[in-house]
Amino acid sequence: MRLRMFAAIFAAIFASTALAQSGPDAWRSEGVIYTDHSPYAKLHTVPVRAVRLEDGFWSRRMRINVERSIPTMLDELEQHGVVDNFRRLSGHKQAPRRGPLYTDSDIYKWIEAAAFVLESGDRPELRATVDRLTDEILAAQEPSGYLNTYYVDDRKEKRFTEMYRSHELYCLGHLLQGAIAYYRATGKRKLLDGGIRFVNYMIEHFGPAKRPALTGHPEFEMALVELYRTTGDRRYLDYAGYLLSGVERDRLHLSDGQVAYMFSGIPFTSRTRFEGHAVRAMYASSGATDYYAETGGRAYWETLERLWKDLVDRKMYITGGVGSREAGESIGEAYELPNAQAYGESCAAIGNMLWNWRMLAVSGDARFADVIERALYNGINSGMSLSGTLYCYRNPLESSGEKIRNEWYDTTCCPPNLERILASLPGYFYNTSLKGLYVNLYDNSHLDWHLEDGTALKVDQKTDYPWGDADEITVSPVKPSEFSVFVRIPGWSRSTQVQVNGMVAEGSPQPGRYFEIRRQWKAGDRVDLKFDGTPQLIRANPLVREDAERVAVQRGPLVYCIESTDQAVGAALYDMELSHPSQPFQQEYRRDLLDGVMVLRHAGVAAEMPLEEEPLYQRALDASPAARKSIELMFIPYYAWANRGLTSMEVWVPVNQTGSGTR
Amino acid sequence: MRLRMFAAIFAAIFASTALAQSGPDAWRSEGVIYTDHSPYAKLHTVPVRAVRLEDGFWSRRMRINVERSIPTMLDELEQHGVVDNFRRLSGHKQAPRRGPLYTDSDIYKWIEAAAFVLESGDRPELRATVDRLTDEILAAQEPSGYLNTYYVDDRKEKRFTEMYRSHELYCLGHLLQGAIAYYRATGKRKLLDGGIRFVNYMIEHFGPAKRPALTGHPEFEMALVELYRTTGDRRYLDYAGYLLSGVERDRLHLSDGQVAYMFSGIPFTSRTRFEGHAVRAMYASSGATDYYAETGGRAYWETLERLWKDLVDRKMYITGGVGSREAGESIGEAYELPNAQAYGESCAAIGNMLWNWRMLAVSGDARFADVIERALYNGINSGMSLSGTLYCYRNPLESSGEKIRNEWYDTTCCPPNLERILASLPGYFYNTSLKGLYVNLYDNSHLDWHLEDGTALKVDQKTDYPWGDADEITVSPVKPSEFSVFVRIPGWSRSTQVQVNGMVAEGSPQPGRYFEIRRQWKAGDRVDLKFDGTPQLIRANPLVREDAERVAVQRGPLVYCIESTDQAVGAALYDMELSHPSQPFQQEYRRDLLDGVMVLRHAGVAAEMPLEEEPLYQRALDASPAARKSIELMFIPYYAWANRGLTSMEVWVPVNQTGSGTR
Repeated sequence: MRLRMFAAIFAAIFASTALAQSGPDAWRSEGVIYTDHSPYAKLHTVPVRAVRLEDGFWSRRMRINVERSIPTMLDELEQHGVVDNFRRLSGHKQAPRRGPLYTDSDIYKWIEAAAFVLESGDRPELRATVDRLTDEILAAQEPSGYLNTYYVDDRKEKRFTEMYRSHELYCLGHLLQGAIAYYRATGKRKLLDGGIRFVNYMIEHFGPAKRPALTGHPEFEMALVELYRTTGDRRYLDYAGYLLSGVERDRLHLSDGQVAYMFSGIPFTSRTRFEGHAVRAMYASSGATDYYAETGGRAYWETLERLWKDLVDRKMYITGGVGSREAGESIGEAYELPNAQAYGESCAAIGNMLWNWRMLAVSGDARFADVIERALYNGINSGMSLSGTLYCYRNPLESSGEKIRNEWYDTTCCPPNLERILASLPGYFYNTSLKGLYVNLYDNSHLDWHLEDGTALKVDQKTDYPWGDADEITVSPVKPSEFSVFVRIPGWSRSTQVQVNGMVAEGSPQPGRYFEIRRQWKAGDRVDLKFDGTPQLIRANPLVREDAERVAVQRGPLVYCIESTDQAVGAALYDMELSHPSQPFQQEYRRDLLDGVMVLRHAGVAAEMPLEEEPLYQRALDASPAARKSIELMFIPYYAWANRGLTSMEVWVPVNQTGSGTR
Repeated sequence: MRLRMFAAIFAAIFASTALAQSGPDAWRSEGVIYTDHSPYAKLHTVPVRAVRLEDGFWSRRMRINVERSIPTMLDELEQHGVVDNFRRLSGHKQAPRRGPLYTDSDIYKWIEAAAFVLESGDRPELRATVDRLTDEILAAQEPSGYLNTYYVDDRKEKRFTEMYRSHELYCLGHLLQGAIAYYRATGKRKLLDGGIRFVNYMIEHFGPAKRPALTGHPEFEMALVELYRTTGDRRYLDYAGYLLSGVERDRLHLSDGQVAYMFSGIPFTSRTRFEGHAVRAMYASSGATDYYAETGGRAYWETLERLWKDLVDRKMYITGGVGSREAGESIGEAYELPNAQAYGESCAAIGNMLWNWRMLAVSGDARFADVIERALYNGINSGMSLSGTLYCYRNPLESSGEKIRNEWYDTTCCPPNLERILASLPGYFYNTSLKGLYVNLYDNSHLDWHLEDGTALKVDQKTDYPWGDADEITVSPVKPSEFSVFVRIPGWSRSTQVQVNGMVAEGSPQPGRYFEIRRQWKAGDRVDLKFDGTPQLIRANPLVREDAERVAVQRGPLVYCIESTDQAVGAALYDMELSHPSQPFQQEYRRDLLDGVMVLRHAGVAAEMPLEEEPLYQRALDASPAARKSIELMFIPYYAWANRGLTSMEVWVPVNQTGSGTR
């Protein structure tokens, strides 16, 4: 009896240690993920509320997200019955259930987006909407805690019998993430408590000595670790570990094909390469990294490192997109990176960012931030139209002009996912460590936060990034203090100048590394960064079959493309080549175009006779040099494509080394 | 009354005209398809029994087909319950139904293969097996005529309610084709009469003024036209016309996606390009060509011509394979011809051959025979292992060594399809027209047939084709007669010599045309053909992204490939390039290798540092010239790949113009 009491006291102490900053306002300091107490996280997060993005590249996207995307998406969700699916269970509406089996997750993601908006500044109406939705959702929750609008009525008996496809835990994961974000925005726990009831139901009934559980679509793992970080209840962390352990493969009779597709069901640490469904693979790796941040373990880290290299060395699009195949929405084989056929689901690029965000937290290594930036500015950013009301599900790197942007998809995972990422963006700009502050992303912004020793700190950025190459950072601790400011030197910036208060900083800034500036900082100290944003021609590994003899154009973090609408009349886009590759680009900022973009121009050639008129196959000796005429190619940022009607588009452009003749 | 009687007499005369050679033995003279009375067919077919293939390229494949493939496939079909599915309906066996909904077609195709074998020479045991199977099948037929092992019991009420997927008419089509082949082999009509009962049931209940019908997987159209050709009953032809007319789209509420995927459901003559499921598209076009052969009509011909150009100019693999995508087993967009990801289902290459065989019949144009040869020697031939017991479902043009040949597939459409094609091959060698004889294919063989005026004719071919470039054709009419012999000049033979009795023939043989030799022929006259089989480098249209800066090797009708097992040790296949492209190949016939093949050798280079160690993306300026060492590349015929364990393979090989440096 005494021992048991002692254990209980010890557990209580332990729990309160895990949430050292707990207290009535602890939620205020928790970031997009909350790694302050994660033993294996080198970097800690800064809450969304601490960063205000000011007039610049992202502010317009974020404003449209708040003003157009989020409201119109709720209308769409209502029109397509996603909320009614809850109302019919609570008896508030008579209607048949609508949509595929995972629709619940869409409203949860929408709530998460709304929560991040509220964390950036209160909007009473939006807050009231979330509260109302919370009531509608929880009214459908069963007394046991179970909550899912699909596995009801006739399908009730199928609950947890087809977990490889059921998305029950996927939906629960998104419920938790939405609830945690709303808690961190407002301190309100109602939705969170509802989610916890369902999690507790799972833990009570499913586990190694109970019925077997599986995340058929990983996502729940991330949510469980975040729930642990939020509540301090270690059972949630352990449950994530159980799901990642893959011990239920036999009990669930999972096939090789299933565990490959789901990226789940076998020990995560047995993975050596990416395969299967791209979004599942990214979410599983994100959850595993969260778990590693709390528990460590060499096997986890080695697996994560190996997978990361597999991705960035062999399977990632230059846009940060992931997923080569429509079939199975699959990640594809090494170097299988088709352009027109690229799947590149917006959710997979988002998953790539979420994963690298966690890898950055555990390592402090800027190569992960490079991938975040690549995915964010390109493969994610392309997913939402400039109008904020049309979304890409696929993000191909070449198109002959099919309709790619739509306001609704029956599987509408991507739109609210894009909305929650945009709304959470302030939370990605900075990290802290015991040594000081990390600057991850660049845009006009104001940080109001503190160092880990409690010293209040304000930081301002003034920049034209990504159109300009300079950033002026003002660092203002409340009192003079010695600490480090780690500024990220992007991998694409071959040479970067760093000045502190007008003096060249000591040390050598390296591309793809953080540059540490350690000194006694006082209010108003200024760091000037000057990147090398010269437009660059990028070539792919020749093993990428479709990019052979082609180049992509990158300026700063932005990948560019050509759209037919911008090119010389009289030739098809596919008959054009970039020529004189050693010549520089002409750059022009066009305020009138695509909400303001830097356009790039370069010499090119176009075939006089359309390639379509050539035979499909001919003897190489018979292939006569095609006559070509000089043209000028105009490039726009990839993210802005398909915003002016249906035009053909190409990221990887054939390169003509000589300016004429055959290629 | 008198008018009606007159009409009846006229109809009877017309019907008997349509089967002018009818009579108890008419079946003996009917070819693989039977176009003798097709008003819009320029060429008429020669029955399988009239041609004996002698020791040569195809005879070994055909012998293995008879001795190994066909017997072992029946064992497989039995083991997987395909025949039991019939036995359970007739009460001969208690067993649950097994396999996907189209398994009936597999045993029908197997019967068709067996029938063609029997037409080449009686095998009492095989004949008894077909008779036994016929009894087993017909014992499951319902009194109404309906026959399908899937839509029974609980599914009975779904009959013809889901024709977009049900394969009911697809199965019926294969039943008819098998039954017609067996009738043409033996004169036995039992299975044919069973098939006719089901067709009559369809005609009675489904049609414009009855319930709507649709071929969700086209195939039935071909069979209906052949049934008309066999029976003279015009209702069958008209029913094919009804199905091709697409008038039921509205009544069946077919979506755009469905009519694209099925290549059915809208007027065939409204098609302007290929899309959707590759096999469906090929079979639909075959059926439409059969229909055109009987009815003419400019809209049909223009559609067929347009589609044919779409295929051979934009969507066909160099192997004659068709189908670029796993997703939807789809034919893909123009120039979408990936290599490793090629789907290239064996059935689609077969469909391509079937279609071009019909296009050849209606036109007499050798360009269709070129496609037949291309598909037959390459994309079809690759589908069956040299052992005759392993089959490809997919036929990719590049592989990193996955297992591609299997003895069984749950969807086992391809194996018996390959078997029926091989068994029917003699029927493709010759055609006749009023002017004389067409020689389509080359191999050691003996023809015993007659001209259309009834003059008996024997033709012998002696050749090493496709390894050698000469063919010696002896033409022996029973009595001296004036007629034309049309010898096909393959499209790949840039210069061809034709001699008649040792003298150069008058006229200029053109690649891709028939060369007409009109003269008074007497027994023993000899035609000598000398082709130019020099190995050639082929390049693809630059719009085929994956083939950029690559070449394929073709020797005569054979496309070649490199397999890692034949190459220099110490470099991965994908690090190899062909160099010095203007140098000739070394050729060596290797009796010991792959049942005897001509191997080709060429200078090449291999990267010193594996390309896998290069970054996925880098600045073009940073990409340093890779050091390369000289190697020799060894090529084998594509059809013979993956017969020596799992090795990587490539058809399209990178070409290095200089022999060193970067590509």
